[in-house]
Amino acid sequence: MDKYYVLGVDLGGQTAKCGIVNREGEVLAQTVMVSNRHDDADGFVSALADTLHKLISDARLDAPVMGIGVGAPNGNYYTGEIRHAPNLVWARNLDIPFASMLSERMDGMPVALTNDANAAAVGEMTYGVARGMKNFIMITLGTGVGSGIVVNGDVVYGHDGFAGELGHVCVVRDGRQCGCGLRGCLEAYCSAVGVARTAREWLELRPDEQTLLRLRAEVTSKDVFEAAKAGDRMALEILDFTGSLLGRAFASFIAFSAPEAIVLFGGLARAGEFLTKPILKAMNESVLPIWRDRVKLLYSGLSESDAAIIGASALAWKFNF
Amino acid sequence: MDKYYVLGVDLGGQTAKCGIVNREGEVLAQTVMVSNRHDDADGFVSALADTLHKLISDARLDAPVMGIGVGAPNGNYYTGEIRHAPNLVWARNLDIPFASMLSERMDGMPVALTNDANAAAVGEMTYGVARGMKNFIMITLGTGVGSGIVVNGDVVYGHDGFAGELGHVCVVRDGRQCGCGLRGCLEAYCSAVGVARTAREWLELRPDEQTLLRLRAEVTSKDVFEAAKAGDRMALEILDFTGSLLGRAFASFIAFSAPEAIVLFGGLARAGEFLTKPILKAMNESVLPIWRDRVKLLYSGLSESDAAIIGASALAWKFNF
Repeated sequence: MDKYYVLGVDLGGQTAKCGIVNREGEVLAQTVMVSNRHDDADGFVSALADTLHKLISDARLDAPVMGIGVGAPNGNYYTGEIRHAPNLVWARNLDIPFASMLSERMDGMPVALTNDANAAAVGEMTYGVARGMKNFIMITLGTGVGSGIVVNGDVVYGHDGFAGELGHVCVVRDGRQCGCGLRGCLEAYCSAVGVARTAREWLELRPDEQTLLRLRAEVTSKDVFEAAKAGDRMALEILDFTGSLLGRAFASFIAFSAPEAIVLFGGLARAGEFLTKPILKAMNESVLPIWRDRVKLLYSGLSESDAAIIGASALAWKFNF
Repeated sequence: MDKYYVLGVDLGGQTAKCGIVNREGEVLAQTVMVSNRHDDADGFVSALADTLHKLISDARLDAPVMGIGVGAPNGNYYTGEIRHAPNLVWARNLDIPFASMLSERMDGMPVALTNDANAAAVGEMTYGVARGMKNFIMITLGTGVGSGIVVNGDVVYGHDGFAGELGHVCVVRDGRQCGCGLRGCLEAYCSAVGVARTAREWLELRPDEQTLLRLRAEVTSKDVFEAAKAGDRMALEILDFTGSLLGRAFASFIAFSAPEAIVLFGGLARAGEFLTKPILKAMNESVLPIWRDRVKLLYSGLSESDAAIIGASALAWKFNF
């Protein structure tokens, strides 16, 4: 096999993280640029291309860079477009043909694009704990809840390229308002933001209960984990509640695609057993007997700081150089 | 393309329907045998093989029969086994290597096996309204609720071969006991049996309400449709309730695989607009804006009497003759 490199770009609302990655999933060089200082997509893509050209030339590589993988909010794998991404200032209410724009400014280098959770799934399958798995579901627990579903070794993109939005499956009938406009979404409860919301709601609902969480001005999900580690009852209950909702949702996902494993990734996953215990309990209670205690719950095998770049870069290996 | 025929076998708890099918999905000859008169699988498979041999010789075909497709409860596509099928007297608490047993008694003819809902999905994709579709979800509304999920043109079988059990997704938290052992399953509410259960529950809960349903000794789902057609308020409400549950569940399924269409099949689908209106309303209210009013709701394009045979037979075309 000839030696090649690929680029991975993890595009977020604040920054774009860029890296050069080899076939083993090692990041050889990386850089970060801001992603919210341009008013239009043209300006941003030009600046990104400059950043990537510089990254390549500074790295003094011994082999060529052959493709680019991009993980971006609302990124569509089929069309290469970023569609109405509210978190990207230059893509609000717009369809941006991002892949073709970037490819053009990178001397025709092929660009593959999908959303960040799908990119994470590809990364996990290429380099992480899902190596060798043909059927698994990646769940990213960060500010939001994302998902990447792999069936028969391929990411499920669906008819329109937007499949795998498991963060917006309803888990509480007529529940909390979610940012997407729906009510009771998994994301409204089980993201970092959702956990903090639960804490604030419960503090108000139980004014007399003593808890470490009451000492915080603005409770975050991190405060909840730390309080849980210190044995705080309310914090433990919040993680139990969060894990139960996740576990019940996972049971539905299992009924859909019968995955070998569900792989967790992201900040919330750091809550460890406080979260996995209630997840496994609810999941195994809510799933058909044929799957009880048979579906693995795993943590991502990629280092958190590099995972997004590695995941995005893994998309680019699909191009036959 | 050379001329060949395939056999389709629709295996149920009471009968096995068998037919010879051509490439156009026409049933050239068919027969039915009982499936519950044998104590062991060996006896039943031998009798089935005799029936199939006779069906073929009586049909005086102008070309050879090259493969067999079987739709069976708990049929596993990967292993060819029927696993712990409570409705088949000779397969209770047993794993029956059905495909290989039948193949052996059919002079080595290849046998493909899956559950009936997956077979229906293959049939719909090969001959029905899903022709040309790469991503759709088949929902069978009969005594139970079954599903066959097609992603990228292939049925989703999952890691173990049992994927697509959407009848056992929870739609009512801590709801009705389902036959599977779980509570609140879609099947417990939206199957024919579920609709009749709703009617009986509501009749008891609203003793003073006048309704045509009260005139029935043992209300069935068919009674509910007929009363709805006659304008009966409770019957209409029952179908509205049933459709809403289906619609909300479908919204979750769409978030998973972003299908082009959801295809309904089976007796309950005959309720027509009484069911599709509330389904579409709830589905479009519960789904992310990107899919609102974009996912089609279709009825099966196969004639109900032949569909199960045709669906099963379609499995056999995967063999390269």
